[in-house]
Amino acid sequence: MQTGILYGISVGPGDRELITLKGLRILKESTVVAFPAGIGGKPGFAQQIVGQWLGSNQIQLPLSFPYVNDSVALAQAWLKAAEQVWQYLSLGQDVAFACEGDVSFYSTFTYLSQTLQQLYPETVVQTVPGVCSPMAAASSLGIPLSVLDQRLAVLPALYHVKELEIVLDWADVVVLMKVSSVYKQVWQLLEQRQLLEHACVVERATRSEQVIYRDLSNQPSLKLPYFSVLIVKVTQSSN
Amino acid sequence: MQTGILYGISVGPGDRELITLKGLRILKESTVVAFPAGIGGKPGFAQQIVGQWLGSNQIQLPLSFPYVNDSVALAQAWLKAAEQVWQYLSLGQDVAFACEGDVSFYSTFTYLSQTLQQLYPETVVQTVPGVCSPMAAASSLGIPLSVLDQRLAVLPALYHVKELEIVLDWADVVVLMKVSSVYKQVWQLLEQRQLLEHACVVERATRSEQVIYRDLSNQPSLKLPYFSVLIVKVTQSSN
Repeated sequence: MQTGILYGISVGPGDRELITLKGLRILKESTVVAFPAGIGGKPGFAQQIVGQWLGSNQIQLPLSFPYVNDSVALAQAWLKAAEQVWQYLSLGQDVAFACEGDVSFYSTFTYLSQTLQQLYPETVVQTVPGVCSPMAAASSLGIPLSVLDQRLAVLPALYHVKELEIVLDWADVVVLMKVSSVYKQVWQLLEQRQLLEHACVVERATRSEQVIYRDLSNQPSLKLPYFSVLIVKVTQSSN
Repeated sequence: MQTGILYGISVGPGDRELITLKGLRILKESTVVAFPAGIGGKPGFAQQIVGQWLGSNQIQLPLSFPYVNDSVALAQAWLKAAEQVWQYLSLGQDVAFACEGDVSFYSTFTYLSQTLQQLYPETVVQTVPGVCSPMAAASSLGIPLSVLDQRLAVLPALYHVKELEIVLDWADVVVLMKVSSVYKQVWQLLEQRQLLEHACVVERATRSEQVIYRDLSNQPSLKLPYFSVLIVKVTQSSN
């Protein structure tokens, strides 16, 4: 018997309408819909986005991925999740994994699919691209992210401020993902470089709880949620 | 009378199903649908993506943007396009501009909307984010674009190879947009750095004419179309 296909579906940054037609079609066609389990009994972000579209005959499979830096604990979680997904794939049933943002861009799906392919090399994986948070944040801000010959740099989460120093020397536009844990140091560096007025933060882009800060000059110590994006326009383009 | 709203709708990289629900809804609701005019009488890319969704009562407005580097000619084209769009906005009619890829990411829409806002500061602009070509290319390749703490750099179109040298020293993943005009020099530099086997090219990602090259070792002189993305994995992550 043929095994099912594991689909990685990008469901976008938060606004439920920012899923693609293709992502939604495959999601609706799949026997099983998996997503990262929420914390404390609450539905997770991806689940909130896709929940309204799921039929009563579809199996919902929450998978636990701890928010920790412990690589052993993470590897164990991916292993367990991979086995849960394989249960269905091995029976020939398709599994659609709903993934917040874009599935290729710093996504949990990568670890799940790679763990599955290591355990069961016959696993067939297909992904559907989607809207990533930098594009969503730029749209919410009403600014272009990049134009003309601008060089764009993305830093995932910044543990060494030195990285940011290097990139500010090089790039025209810098995006800092998940900036909350290092915001204070980032602010100080942007102050030194006189870039605060050209820096913006978007919390939870496109969600109903979205918050925007357009000029960080008076914001040395913002308390930000995990999904916060900071955009710095290093070079002031006429556009 | 209130003026209409100018919507910048990201219609995605090429696959017609990669438009978002929100983009499609606003497109269908707008009185006028604008898009970059095709060349030689053929429908343009964005027009091909949205054509099937348009109703017979909607006004289709092709706008001419020459593919040149002449800034005077470009400014004249944006001015003319802005006036064409304003005709409708000033009558209170909404105009949806269909924009290939993502509207914030090296997009013609930026110039159109900024020209309009300079001419008519009362213009109201809203954008809908979408799938940009690097995400689409990664999905087509079946690889993650970035994982963990990887630093990502995007170069728009490379006129100085020195730029690429700098970025290869810094980034873990490098995306070169519209690489066709400089492909030969890029190939030579990647050869010197022994990165050819970790470099991929995707022509016209997600379109039916999509072509993929997964290892560039034997491809010193590819003839690529305008919409070609090159991805280099500088650092070999275990993921």
